[in-house]
Amino acid sequence: MGSPLPTHRLIHEKLGVLLGLPVFASDAISSVAYATDEIIIGLAVAGAAGLAYSVPVALAIVVIMILVSSSYQQVIKAYPEGGGAYTVAKENLGRTAGLVAGAALLVDYILTVAVSVASGIDNLVSAVPALANHHLLLSVGGILFLTWLNLRGVRESARVVALPIYIFIASVTGLILLGGYRVLTHQFQPLPLPQLQVQHQLSAYTVLHAFASACVALTGIEAVSNGVQAFREPHVRNARITMALLALILATFFFGIVSLTRAYQVVPVLGTETSFSKLGHLIYGGGVLYYVLQLSTLIILLLAANTSFQDFPRVARLLARDGFLPRQLANLGDRLVFANGIGLLGAIAIALVLAFRGSTHALIPLYAIGVFLSFTLSQIGMVRRWVKLQPPGWWISVIFNAAGAFGTAVVLCVVTASKFMGGAWMVCIAVPSLVRLFSRIRKHYDAVAKELTLEGFLPPRQGMTTVLIVPVASLHRGTVMALTYAKGMGVPVRAVHVVVDEDQFRSLQERWKQWEPDLPLIGLPSPYRSLTAPIAEYASSLRLQFDTVTVLIPQFIVPQAWEELLHNQSAIMLNFALRHLHGVNILHFRYQIHT
Amino acid sequence: MGSPLPTHRLIHEKLGVLLGLPVFASDAISSVAYATDEIIIGLAVAGAAGLAYSVPVALAIVVIMILVSSSYQQVIKAYPEGGGAYTVAKENLGRTAGLVAGAALLVDYILTVAVSVASGIDNLVSAVPALANHHLLLSVGGILFLTWLNLRGVRESARVVALPIYIFIASVTGLILLGGYRVLTHQFQPLPLPQLQVQHQLSAYTVLHAFASACVALTGIEAVSNGVQAFREPHVRNARITMALLALILATFFFGIVSLTRAYQVVPVLGTETSFSKLGHLIYGGGVLYYVLQLSTLIILLLAANTSFQDFPRVARLLARDGFLPRQLANLGDRLVFANGIGLLGAIAIALVLAFRGSTHALIPLYAIGVFLSFTLSQIGMVRRWVKLQPPGWWISVIFNAAGAFGTAVVLCVVTASKFMGGAWMVCIAVPSLVRLFSRIRKHYDAVAKELTLEGFLPPRQGMTTVLIVPVASLHRGTVMALTYAKGMGVPVRAVHVVVDEDQFRSLQERWKQWEPDLPLIGLPSPYRSLTAPIAEYASSLRLQFDTVTVLIPQFIVPQAWEELLHNQSAIMLNFALRHLHGVNILHFRYQIHT
Repeated sequence: MGSPLPTHRLIHEKLGVLLGLPVFASDAISSVAYATDEIIIGLAVAGAAGLAYSVPVALAIVVIMILVSSSYQQVIKAYPEGGGAYTVAKENLGRTAGLVAGAALLVDYILTVAVSVASGIDNLVSAVPALANHHLLLSVGGILFLTWLNLRGVRESARVVALPIYIFIASVTGLILLGGYRVLTHQFQPLPLPQLQVQHQLSAYTVLHAFASACVALTGIEAVSNGVQAFREPHVRNARITMALLALILATFFFGIVSLTRAYQVVPVLGTETSFSKLGHLIYGGGVLYYVLQLSTLIILLLAANTSFQDFPRVARLLARDGFLPRQLANLGDRLVFANGIGLLGAIAIALVLAFRGSTHALIPLYAIGVFLSFTLSQIGMVRRWVKLQPPGWWISVIFNAAGAFGTAVVLCVVTASKFMGGAWMVCIAVPSLVRLFSRIRKHYDAVAKELTLEGFLPPRQGMTTVLIVPVASLHRGTVMALTYAKGMGVPVRAVHVVVDEDQFRSLQERWKQWEPDLPLIGLPSPYRSLTAPIAEYASSLRLQFDTVTVLIPQFIVPQAWEELLHNQSAIMLNFALRHLHGVNILHFRYQIHT
Repeated sequence: MGSPLPTHRLIHEKLGVLLGLPVFASDAISSVAYATDEIIIGLAVAGAAGLAYSVPVALAIVVIMILVSSSYQQVIKAYPEGGGAYTVAKENLGRTAGLVAGAALLVDYILTVAVSVASGIDNLVSAVPALANHHLLLSVGGILFLTWLNLRGVRESARVVALPIYIFIASVTGLILLGGYRVLTHQFQPLPLPQLQVQHQLSAYTVLHAFASACVALTGIEAVSNGVQAFREPHVRNARITMALLALILATFFFGIVSLTRAYQVVPVLGTETSFSKLGHLIYGGGVLYYVLQLSTLIILLLAANTSFQDFPRVARLLARDGFLPRQLANLGDRLVFANGIGLLGAIAIALVLAFRGSTHALIPLYAIGVFLSFTLSQIGMVRRWVKLQPPGWWISVIFNAAGAFGTAVVLCVVTASKFMGGAWMVCIAVPSLVRLFSRIRKHYDAVAKELTLEGFLPPRQGMTTVLIVPVASLHRGTVMALTYAKGMGVPVRAVHVVVDEDQFRSLQERWKQWEPDLPLIGLPSPYRSLTAPIAEYASSLRLQFDTVTVLIPQFIVPQAWEELLHNQSAIMLNFALRHLHGVNILHFRYQIHT
């Protein structure tokens, strides 16, 4: 993991629009690489007649994009310190809404990692078909790489990120312009439409289903609103301009790509080539430009996944700080990152990719629910806020946010209904389970805090008495040193031996009298040959005379790790046997073995 | 695991020949159930011409059986207290030979479990073909069941074991008599010989290979010699009679079954039906007698596996007592069994069955080497012994043992050579590796014993000084109690706080002065935010003033297991960070949380 970083290295570079755009763009605009496939696959079940609806569906998505982005313009205005869905929902709609938003965000970030990496590998495989057999391995490797990078404390430098993002933006812009020009001037040859098996008659359900799938194109559109502070002054203004630009690029790209796939009659082949890659091939040919497009697509998708590695630990930390998640998720590690959160995210994302065998298409149904749930909660929260605070011009903001809330709520219902059987049910179970878990953890911490409060607490005036039990298996240098150490503590010492073999105990007593004439060795009978139960019993019995009991467990420190297996097994067992005894403390005396 | 058993329950029932035979028979005579298949499969690669050699091969095996069993008659005479190969080889041929024999025995016992259970399930599946798809699951389940039974401390009662063994003996005797009668009186219909693909021309190699495979029939023939003490007086005589009877039954069964498969032209179908089961079908028809035969075969094979659950821990204990294996393998558990050895055996056997996908045929090549290696070492050891001690009539014993040693050594070479590529190489790696491991463990224990000896040791006269470090994260009842306890210990106390946040430390100091006015709270700077490194450093620095340092780590005891995840994470990390510091002892102060 490299050497640790001191706290003062936690500085922020301040961004203008030009560098702010690439920093916040990856999650949002990378989704054109997989959302297009989702529309076409969704409509293709109704055959060629279905495909005719791809452009209208894309148009509907663009409308939602406009709705959501203008809605988030209001969030930026209201929360210049950064307004994530958890904060907005908690502050304006109460604790439960906040927890639901928090759970939705965590689920969403996990899926961003899984889907983005899987789709990145889809596009890599499209360009280099020889890698097709290693899709799963590459996906897992990609997530491991990102986890390592983030644990290592590597930060996205805006300048480093900007280059591939602008290359991607240039490549896609070129693709749309060149493709659009050829289509408009009729200098193009559409692909022969493959034989599509009609599985369903074309219906409103088919179209809604395709629409629901394509809604993943909206993920990450809100990113700017979480990071207003990263912008240079006037930061609200800069953030709003960036947000508007981002929405414009996203909408243009998405609509342009879908329209071109329609014109060129592109249909993706799952596991072989994405429609995005096919379009690249058709328009750019097989040359350098195509490979630039695919490579920048891979990089932007990995960058999109990488944003989750910053967002997931951040939200987990907010929840942990409020007592809803274990406290260790709130600790900034020695490399200035929330290492526990990063590791947790990487592990769950890998498990998810393995469970779904790396299929982007299979993961998508789980994705959009979390996104639109947090959108909706956030917008409803904003409406409440405006109505309550009523700042100047609040009614305009209310209109935008109410429209946004309504639009995203409708999409949420459509997505849940049409994707429920396809996998969304898992999210419908996961989110309430997480909320329940959060509440239970908070309840536990509250109860503990109440029990530990010093208010009205009177510490024992006369102090606490304790007795030191030293178990002795045999007499050797380690035992003698342990006894010397024990006698150096100013508390009563009891040396005990668990008697499994009477003869052995008698000969031990003989030697004992030579070495420790002043301290009697107490024999504890063990009819069942247990080495631990008699000590636990004896410790409990001494609790009647002393406030606490301390059991000294001698441990050998050996130079080699494998040698540990040859020692300390009784120590481990004794530690285990005593672990739940109230008022019994364990003192591990370490004795170094040099050989 | 049920309630523990007191030591005085460790009694032995003394056996006569009638009850002694079934107790020691299962491992040996159960092998007819799979050894027959091995001959036929081995010869079938040369087609029908190969199969003609099955009876001569069986005859050769019978000769080896006579050789080995008369050789072991001498072992019984010489070691009435029980002469396992490890003891005989160690005493007469030296430590290395003993370790080789010990390693061979351990490998052998593991394979007995794997092969016997897999073959038992083969025979179950032959009778109930519906179970064929669950072969692997049933095999693993069978081993788990035996492991549980033995951990539970269930002992084979001779009376309980006798019933199924005598049923098996009766069933097979009936099979041979009825089948033999029909063959001799020409009242039988041989099966049409299946189309055998000739993979090799018939050659000496083919025959030797089949012979090597069939040598597994000898496993367990030595069992009586390990347990002479179990017999009623005159125990040597009773044991020798039992041994002779056992060899007679084994030879008769093996030769009879192979001859019948030849006459009936039975060829097993791997994974579907064993030749043993096919023969049962042909001779007994599909009725009750057939199912009695198959059920008693399954039971006797499970009993054979079960003997290893007693033998493996016994040999492991002998090795552990001599310092060649970790000491915990020598502890008699609270249910009068060597629980560690039993668990280890079960785990390795399951791993083996899984690795070989439950195929008896694939496991067999690994099997015979260990058996014949221990036979050979044992017999050579006996020859050495007779020559050295020269008791009356020693030259007769020498002849028997020398013939046995020679015969088994030849078989060992044949088995190793012909099975090497088929899997025996694994055993050829495993046995030397085990021997090396044994030696390293012994060397380590010897070195430690030398370092720990009290001879010439002068304990520190003036005692040992120590200091108690109490890390304080925040002030609450638990902290105050820990400090009260620490101050009661009669040694200097240092309260320390790792400063990650300066403001937090200042406000902690304020409250601290109210609660602990007499004890200063020392702030340890932590530029890298580590909670453990500053404490480890401080502990090391105090080692300059004190003989040892003791770090108090407060731990919460919570009622629910899942709640542990919400606490004590820093305690675990601190424990881990300090685990290898020489002279630093750890005192776990337990504080009970009640909610």
